[in-house]
Amino acid sequence: MMGSMRATIIAVGSELLGVQRLDTNSLRLTAVLDRHGIELIGKSVVGDSEAALAAELRRRASESELVLVTGGLGPTADDVTRPAAAAAFDRSLQIDERLVDHMRRLFESFGREMPEVNRKQAEVIDGATILKNRRGTAPGQRLEVGATSIFLFPGVPRELEAMIEDHLEPWLTDHPQAVGHGLETGVLKVACLAESALEERIMSAYDRFGRERISVLASPGDIKIYFSARGTEAERRTELDEMRQVLGELAGDVVYTDRDEDNLETVVGRLATAAGKTITTAESCTGGLVAERLTRVPGSSAYFLGGVVSYTNELKVQLLGVSEADLATHGAVSEPVARAMAQGVRSRYGSDYGIGVTGVAGPGGGSEAKPVGTVHMAVAGPGDDYVEHRVVRFPGGRDRVRQQTSQLVLDLVRRDLLRRDLLRRDGPDQDGE
Amino acid sequence: MMGSMRATIIAVGSELLGVQRLDTNSLRLTAVLDRHGIELIGKSVVGDSEAALAAELRRRASESELVLVTGGLGPTADDVTRPAAAAAFDRSLQIDERLVDHMRRLFESFGREMPEVNRKQAEVIDGATILKNRRGTAPGQRLEVGATSIFLFPGVPRELEAMIEDHLEPWLTDHPQAVGHGLETGVLKVACLAESALEERIMSAYDRFGRERISVLASPGDIKIYFSARGTEAERRTELDEMRQVLGELAGDVVYTDRDEDNLETVVGRLATAAGKTITTAESCTGGLVAERLTRVPGSSAYFLGGVVSYTNELKVQLLGVSEADLATHGAVSEPVARAMAQGVRSRYGSDYGIGVTGVAGPGGGSEAKPVGTVHMAVAGPGDDYVEHRVVRFPGGRDRVRQQTSQLVLDLVRRDLLRRDLLRRDGPDQDGE
Repeated sequence: MMGSMRATIIAVGSELLGVQRLDTNSLRLTAVLDRHGIELIGKSVVGDSEAALAAELRRRASESELVLVTGGLGPTADDVTRPAAAAAFDRSLQIDERLVDHMRRLFESFGREMPEVNRKQAEVIDGATILKNRRGTAPGQRLEVGATSIFLFPGVPRELEAMIEDHLEPWLTDHPQAVGHGLETGVLKVACLAESALEERIMSAYDRFGRERISVLASPGDIKIYFSARGTEAERRTELDEMRQVLGELAGDVVYTDRDEDNLETVVGRLATAAGKTITTAESCTGGLVAERLTRVPGSSAYFLGGVVSYTNELKVQLLGVSEADLATHGAVSEPVARAMAQGVRSRYGSDYGIGVTGVAGPGGGSEAKPVGTVHMAVAGPGDDYVEHRVVRFPGGRDRVRQQTSQLVLDLVRRDLLRRDLLRRDGPDQDGE
Repeated sequence: MMGSMRATIIAVGSELLGVQRLDTNSLRLTAVLDRHGIELIGKSVVGDSEAALAAELRRRASESELVLVTGGLGPTADDVTRPAAAAAFDRSLQIDERLVDHMRRLFESFGREMPEVNRKQAEVIDGATILKNRRGTAPGQRLEVGATSIFLFPGVPRELEAMIEDHLEPWLTDHPQAVGHGLETGVLKVACLAESALEERIMSAYDRFGRERISVLASPGDIKIYFSARGTEAERRTELDEMRQVLGELAGDVVYTDRDEDNLETVVGRLATAAGKTITTAESCTGGLVAERLTRVPGSSAYFLGGVVSYTNELKVQLLGVSEADLATHGAVSEPVARAMAQGVRSRYGSDYGIGVTGVAGPGGGSEAKPVGTVHMAVAGPGDDYVEHRVVRFPGGRDRVRQQTSQLVLDLVRRDLLRRDLLRRDGPDQDGE
């Protein structure tokens, strides 16, 4: 076959067109395709309609060289994949008695008699190759239509898994596409920058590497830059290294990691562990979210001592030593209170870093002077009286304000840990190290 | 228009063809279609390719009367929905300067300058209706192609949500299909019961109402029972009421709500508000998750005073008055410590309820006597010295253990609030009410 192979995925089942279920099988298939360097150009979900599935099969066979179908191979009336595929390509459908025997024995091995409806599962499309299913009764089938190969797989995830291993992987290995030209993806994660601002920074990389190779995925306070390379393993590595470096330099110090498994709390955890520094938190509007994020990380007890959620003014005074005068003069949502919270939690509970957060998460509680989304954040650093402060008015509803707040304070801690790390490394008194 | 309306959904974005993300927006759209009695006949995912999306739009427009598109309306180079839709139906695309002005003001209201790339979002397809987006910069568009209406919506879930409310719902109401024969779904939510145990309880409802009308969706510590009815609005209401009652009685008091928008923290919040009771939390292994969940609810400051995350033994003593003797004798993960935490946080911080949680979330920290997943939970109730205690060994990894723990303690508070509410209502001294 010439050129690179394009693939499409069809998930069959009316339940996948309802409000409760999504087609998750396609993720598993996509991972296999990626590894073999095959481009997935589209995926679709079709209900239990023979006519609709036949039309979809014809369309996909005309635009891709590999069509992967999951579901609709069961024994019931609404399992239409076999007849639809036969109809789509004008093939006959006949029961294979050896398959019936095999199924009957399978049922007997579980002490049950095979229901008559299951005979349907032994229907084979003319010219198709039967694909044994070691985890269920429904065998799969592979048929060739012109230059296109079509795989019919069961939709039960653990059966599909076995089919991928037993049939798809070996077939892909036997049909190498542009040998060794797999696709690999790298990532850079960015904290606390607007998507459009990031876009402007990295614009030149689109021209240099091709815009289809870079994609930007934004969620509140967090952006992922995915970049991909195609080629042999060595080529991919060289390409990805270059893209990572160029994109990283363009984006700047907002990049907090290039590892997919990382998030801001794991990065802060790693830096804090390396520096031997501990953290405590004093939260109001985030209600425990910063502490909760820090403690999601296994082993966080090495650097996280604990925290306080001081939702009321009384608890801000009692637990953190915030002055009643500051509360009265400036209000709970203010710079002096955020600073006092950060310093209070740090000194009272004996940590290196203290985080203080106070704001109006909404939807209630806003005023003209302090509208919903206004948040004061403070980070008290180790060993000195310097306290960093930020005030931001975050857009969005309660969840987003809280999420973005937690992101920004964790990023402040990350930056301070990094800065100290650099100072330490560059410091003249460290020459002996 | 004759007959009933058929709908299709297209999700746009190369990231949705990768191994990381699924199109979840379609579930939300499907719920709206179901309610309006419109049949969804297929959905598909297309990458950031203008040509592929244009082809998909043409095909879907030819086979359905309503096409809902999500995503690809952002300001970046890989946002192709506007040009693809224009190309698909031979329409021109022009920048609407009023939209540009509107966006510029939006940016200014957050103290930022509009990046030039955002101008793209003001491109309008010839003949299309602009759909205002009150939660983001990307407006949507609706265009009519023959007998088909095509909606272009942003892919950001919270923006889409607003667009559905502001534009899709009103439009569907103005275009009634097969009047009144919609499909409607009800829900019951269940806390802290195994899926198989719930299945056994509600088994008889499958026979009574039909297996296909009831589906059970489980996540750690939380199960949703969905049930559906078809017919006129009156028929649906009667059917759903009956199913809700029968399923609710079969499932029992594990059901905490029949409202889709509820979760355990909103239910606890409502009960606490009604009872005029306040809550504080003392958490170890959940690291703030219980407080964070309670404060997700708007207005939670009415009943949540604050909490303590006492990750170290020192903070358990200092902040909660847990006795060093108990810590030494029984260890931090023990019944006496959980009880002391709940009572300590309640009495020290002056709330009606105190929640105490201590456990081994894993992956490290387990022992033979206290394996990973072992959690002691205590709830100190109002007005007496009674403290409820549970110890559970939860299955699953760190996240699941923490999630299930938060679910169980919130459910303990819910049950106590309910019990007191019933006592109050049934009490002989309340006859006068």
